[in-house]
Amino acid sequence: MTVITVAVHPPYPIVLGRGVRDRLGAEMQNVGLGRHSPKVLVVSHPTIARHYAPRLLTSLQNAGFEPYELRLPPGERYKTAATLQKIYDAALAYRLERSSAMVALSGGVAGDMTGFAAATWLRGIPLVQVPTSLLAMVDSAIGGKTGINHPRGKNLIGAFHQPRLVAIDPDVLATLPPREFRTALAEVIKYGVIWDADLFAQLEALPTLDRRMPPAVLEAIIYKCALAKAQVVSQDEKEGGLRAILNYGHTLGHAIEAVTQYRVFNHGEAVALGCLAAGFIAVELSLWSAADNQRQTALIRKAKLPTRLPATLAAADLRLALQADKKVMAGQVRFVLPKAIGQAVVVDQVPAPTIERAIAHLQT
Amino acid sequence: MTVITVAVHPPYPIVLGRGVRDRLGAEMQNVGLGRHSPKVLVVSHPTIARHYAPRLLTSLQNAGFEPYELRLPPGERYKTAATLQKIYDAALAYRLERSSAMVALSGGVAGDMTGFAAATWLRGIPLVQVPTSLLAMVDSAIGGKTGINHPRGKNLIGAFHQPRLVAIDPDVLATLPPREFRTALAEVIKYGVIWDADLFAQLEALPTLDRRMPPAVLEAIIYKCALAKAQVVSQDEKEGGLRAILNYGHTLGHAIEAVTQYRVFNHGEAVALGCLAAGFIAVELSLWSAADNQRQTALIRKAKLPTRLPATLAAADLRLALQADKKVMAGQVRFVLPKAIGQAVVVDQVPAPTIERAIAHLQT
Repeated sequence: MTVITVAVHPPYPIVLGRGVRDRLGAEMQNVGLGRHSPKVLVVSHPTIARHYAPRLLTSLQNAGFEPYELRLPPGERYKTAATLQKIYDAALAYRLERSSAMVALSGGVAGDMTGFAAATWLRGIPLVQVPTSLLAMVDSAIGGKTGINHPRGKNLIGAFHQPRLVAIDPDVLATLPPREFRTALAEVIKYGVIWDADLFAQLEALPTLDRRMPPAVLEAIIYKCALAKAQVVSQDEKEGGLRAILNYGHTLGHAIEAVTQYRVFNHGEAVALGCLAAGFIAVELSLWSAADNQRQTALIRKAKLPTRLPATLAAADLRLALQADKKVMAGQVRFVLPKAIGQAVVVDQVPAPTIERAIAHLQT
Repeated sequence: MTVITVAVHPPYPIVLGRGVRDRLGAEMQNVGLGRHSPKVLVVSHPTIARHYAPRLLTSLQNAGFEPYELRLPPGERYKTAATLQKIYDAALAYRLERSSAMVALSGGVAGDMTGFAAATWLRGIPLVQVPTSLLAMVDSAIGGKTGINHPRGKNLIGAFHQPRLVAIDPDVLATLPPREFRTALAEVIKYGVIWDADLFAQLEALPTLDRRMPPAVLEAIIYKCALAKAQVVSQDEKEGGLRAILNYGHTLGHAIEAVTQYRVFNHGEAVALGCLAAGFIAVELSLWSAADNQRQTALIRKAKLPTRLPATLAAADLRLALQADKKVMAGQVRFVLPKAIGQAVVVDQVPAPTIERAIAHLQT
């Protein structure tokens, strides 16, 4: 078992290891939970709960916790104020106190919502993330971003609320649908491009880039991604600077998701397209080499992630969606652009025609 | 004009003075707002807006801001997720960015909601409080508590989000309904009991305790209360310890409001009853003197705040409501109890029969 520390205030551990989900009660005790209130609300969704909740709940009970369960409907379209209300209602029904905890046994959607509920119930109660998707393991469960969608924009409503513990058990990926696994590879590749050249090289060296990799390799990859995320968040908890590089591929990615009404591409697929656009822009601005950009394209293709935008998609709509992005500063769209494999910078001044050409490039 | 600094991270000023509302733009510039985004959403309600919005908006424009206005329906019953959504919708419609600001030109209800919207829009944007009620001036506008009500409990959903500036203009109290002024006196008396014996003595020395006091006296009283709040919050931003004493009178106060469906007593009136109950309990537990308790009762009576609970109110309902309070720790109801005029402590172990007797005392 491996432990990574996220050095925010207060610091918290990411505990990574096969079977850790069935020791969650003990791990929660280790970080001091349960001293004042034994109550724990475990938020999950039906499929995940069927596979993993019984033993996890038993582990909580064995450690002296008093667990309650709430199952939410799965999927991004339920990441709404109405679903959030269900978590609040459960918190009230079970009379959670300020020192009670919420546990998100889930992927990123329910993880973000449970995190936001924990951030705002009684002005903030302890949160534990037990990510069940690869995407949540390498990204959303770490770093304290929580939130729900506004009917007209993703994650517009949210809060920073760091978990007290992140427990990652790679074995739960056994039940993850293949497309969900693949989509997370976009974020994995992202860490290789912006932070960890060794990870990038490791991904290139794999015979195939899919779930058939050996468990030890998968665990090592998750470790590298979680470490990258932890290092970035430790240096910049609330996205005042460095943390913005984690949005690599997300500027255009979010816009693509929005204009296709979240129906054509899932998050990782849109991010992969965003990475390709950012790579194209970085080459145009002479920030990085065409050769490195080629390596990125090859890796995205190897992961069987999309490399083309539908030609029917109107570039004007994409431009509008870009302007609505959270990351807009004084009307300027911000792009994260690679400088080398393992290094990225934030650029505010990408000329509009360059953005146009990047979009056109993805449509041809 | 007086400035009090709330020493949290980052620190922020409370600017107190007659006419400050019409210099808001300059005051906002002084704290660094407007550098990256000129947009400001001013949230108010119709009556307040009619009196004070035009000149405040002009002052913002003169300072280079781009103000937008939103008027919410007034009253505690609108402190809901649905009203919050209106603020989010306006933030989206005006495309507020992370460095845009929200200004609450309002009493405590809209101030809490605007604060929560600012806490959660794009995971947090700058907030300015311009309190228009005495209650908001001395209490809710300072200290970063924000939130909305759950259908079954007040302020159950919320966040800590400190404002960047609090601008208090006592002149706006001219249009405050008399009952609203009176209800705030409960919080004013509270500061005298828990923190500032001089304030308590000053209140005792006034010929009458109502809005007929001279403006200079009113301003001095507001100053003392705001200073008390700022000092407590500076020592304990997120209610880990000391700040709990600000809940003096609120444990039973909230329960009284809840069991009477927020229809019989307003917040201050319920707090006054809560203070009387806490005083009774403190005497029973030999924490403070019957003489000081008498002084508190006399001051509450002088402020024409209620001193009696309806006999029809079932004590059992009150007990249940107490258990639902946010301040419950491990099933124990927490009371703030006075030790002397100007000093209070938090007590977890008030025996149930003592609470019963306090309730009965208020009903006879």
